[in-house]
Amino acid sequence: MLYENLDKANDAVVEKILAAQPFLVDVVPAKSVINKLEDKVLLHAGPPIKWEEMTEPMQGSCYGAVLFEGWAKSKEEAHSMLEKGEIEFIPCHDVNAVGPMGGITSGNMPVLVVENKEHGNKAYCNLNEGIGKVLRFGAYSEEVINRLHWMKNTLGPTLSNALKLIDGGMNLNVIVAKALTMGDEFHQRNIAASALFMKDITPYIQQLDIPKEDLIAVTKFLADTDQFFLNIAMAYCKSVMDAAKSIGEGTIVTAMTRNGKEFAIKVSGLGERWFVAPVNMPKGLFFTGYSQEEANMDMGDSAITETFGVGGMAMIAAPGVTRFVGADGFNAAQEISDEMEEITFSHNQNLAIPTWDFKGAVVGIDVRKVVETGITPLINTGIAHKKAGVGQIGAGTVRAPYGCFTQALKGLVEKYAEEEKN
Amino acid sequence: MLYENLDKANDAVVEKILAAQPFLVDVVPAKSVINKLEDKVLLHAGPPIKWEEMTEPMQGSCYGAVLFEGWAKSKEEAHSMLEKGEIEFIPCHDVNAVGPMGGITSGNMPVLVVENKEHGNKAYCNLNEGIGKVLRFGAYSEEVINRLHWMKNTLGPTLSNALKLIDGGMNLNVIVAKALTMGDEFHQRNIAASALFMKDITPYIQQLDIPKEDLIAVTKFLADTDQFFLNIAMAYCKSVMDAAKSIGEGTIVTAMTRNGKEFAIKVSGLGERWFVAPVNMPKGLFFTGYSQEEANMDMGDSAITETFGVGGMAMIAAPGVTRFVGADGFNAAQEISDEMEEITFSHNQNLAIPTWDFKGAVVGIDVRKVVETGITPLINTGIAHKKAGVGQIGAGTVRAPYGCFTQALKGLVEKYAEEEKN
Repeated sequence: MLYENLDKANDAVVEKILAAQPFLVDVVPAKSVINKLEDKVLLHAGPPIKWEEMTEPMQGSCYGAVLFEGWAKSKEEAHSMLEKGEIEFIPCHDVNAVGPMGGITSGNMPVLVVENKEHGNKAYCNLNEGIGKVLRFGAYSEEVINRLHWMKNTLGPTLSNALKLIDGGMNLNVIVAKALTMGDEFHQRNIAASALFMKDITPYIQQLDIPKEDLIAVTKFLADTDQFFLNIAMAYCKSVMDAAKSIGEGTIVTAMTRNGKEFAIKVSGLGERWFVAPVNMPKGLFFTGYSQEEANMDMGDSAITETFGVGGMAMIAAPGVTRFVGADGFNAAQEISDEMEEITFSHNQNLAIPTWDFKGAVVGIDVRKVVETGITPLINTGIAHKKAGVGQIGAGTVRAPYGCFTQALKGLVEKYAEEEKN
Repeated sequence: MLYENLDKANDAVVEKILAAQPFLVDVVPAKSVINKLEDKVLLHAGPPIKWEEMTEPMQGSCYGAVLFEGWAKSKEEAHSMLEKGEIEFIPCHDVNAVGPMGGITSGNMPVLVVENKEHGNKAYCNLNEGIGKVLRFGAYSEEVINRLHWMKNTLGPTLSNALKLIDGGMNLNVIVAKALTMGDEFHQRNIAASALFMKDITPYIQQLDIPKEDLIAVTKFLADTDQFFLNIAMAYCKSVMDAAKSIGEGTIVTAMTRNGKEFAIKVSGLGERWFVAPVNMPKGLFFTGYSQEEANMDMGDSAITETFGVGGMAMIAAPGVTRFVGADGFNAAQEISDEMEEITFSHNQNLAIPTWDFKGAVVGIDVRKVVETGITPLINTGIAHKKAGVGQIGAGTVRAPYGCFTQALKGLVEKYAEEEKN
């Protein structure tokens, strides 16, 4: 190894995280940047999974994407194609992308392009659709498909053209640092970041030569979509963690994700290898009329936010979220952050948290510390109904399964023991 | 008295505060709602003050207002008119208005109209001009006057027309409750509320038939002006506290304000009487190149925010502000809020503060408790240069002088002792 020891390697990984300069530079059709999406291919959240293994909300998202792309005319036809294996599946993470919940992304869906200017890499994520009946939670009704078409034809191109007016793109570090002092943790709560994003982009949107009804519709959508920044935050975190991964050594977690069946992590010393274990069931609060019994298992690439050190890892920054996800008050939030401190390598002074007496957010989940302490990362998450087509029914928290970390540590021991011998 | 005892009277005052329903309904030329401004009259912050007693930044604001109104062609001519007594002065508070810092408001300046729909009263405040060289801090250069004309001709009418598209106006309780969970205390920090305001108003502005350059300029101004909501918050608090004042009994402070020379309070049992004492000097942090020696004495009607229970009274809601105003970290913010709890009557459960373990903001400064404990309200404030024309040089905190409260208590004792006899 290039580094004196694992701590030095981890230093290098964390330095890559702290030095990142992610800018939102464009919004483009997914297939224009992910070539495999030219074919009948869908991206999904989590580690590799087959159609028949998917839980229903992810399958529901697939129906929606197939209908949106016009590959089938009905849910039944879509189901038949999917069952016959006519659609290929690729994890988002395999193509520099991430997707919330089902993560189902097809070629004509617009994706955010975040460029980490320090490292030169790019990351992609689809656009947030708002709340209620949305594809990412497994809904595929006409309303959902129509919205996706509007996002493809109007929202995406408008954001793209507006971003091109900003020299160098939009500096996301600025928004993230500000919004963290405004009660956002970027997983369950993005209300401040979404408002700041809208505030920054709208003067540029207004300069475009677009029909007035489109201007109003785009602005209204951004104003109404409090979680719009979630998907930007995910691409932001992915661009940072992919750069960190390039170090190729150390014991820092570089990705955490779930496909409804398996939870998977990558670790800085072992490149693209997934370490998997069965997902846990999220617990939390449910919308009126729904309950824990109807909840789907844990799902989505959105745990990339916790991998970076926000979301549940920065609970203390967002005490307003603790009650919403079923935790107690301010002290509970502080206890969670103090606990997460025990399994992380350092603090991110770019992200000072006023409510934590200006301590920086945690950074660098260390596999060794997770295994040693038995403390697993806490993830804030939306909860889908286990039946396809229903959508979101609540929000809560879930733990990453311990098994991912013990396996990763085993892999690390094998690698570094091997090196020792040579 | 109608009430059994002072506590019951205070209950009624606080109920008026908690029941308030302030809506931002319009933006209009000041003289259209404050008839006295049809003449050569200027409103100023604080209790009554004569031209020759004003500190320089307030005098600088007067030059600017006289130039803006076209009553004089030069600073020298304005000075001569003011010195000869050709301009009449009225406190903002005398005409249902408030104004930050100098508070200087003339007839053609646009004012926000906030209607407290529960009580039926209205309150007014001028529009925030942004930072740097601005009238409220005593600047009166061409840049300042040109901006005021743009606000009169473009910003004001645009906001007015947009607000008319919102049925019933904009519900400010919603924005205030949200922004309080986003680190705003509405005096030194309004970044969340300003972003939320812009997010809510922009879709309506876009529906107007106005030139594209005006649309872009208005949006850019709102996007760039992080303190835009301060003036809305001031009119909001004024509309609430004026309704509370209508109870006419009790020991709750209904106004606090300063004119650079005197600090003044009103108290619920004694109507419009001002109780005054010399102002204190604000202490805090200064912009590069400036120091405490150049600071002007305490000034502005903005302490109406503390009167309502936010600003310095809700420091714990805005730990991000504590360092900016020269206080220490999170614990210092908590200590200040715990201290303010000792001099207030109750908690405002409409304004739950996550960082205070979801306790409501304090409400109802009780003159008796201030006198008994010796604890005076803490006010967050901007700091002006003591010379006219320079503008803001820092921000900090200042205490309301104890003398106002002892005098008010004396007045209350006289009143209620008198009633006892009858």
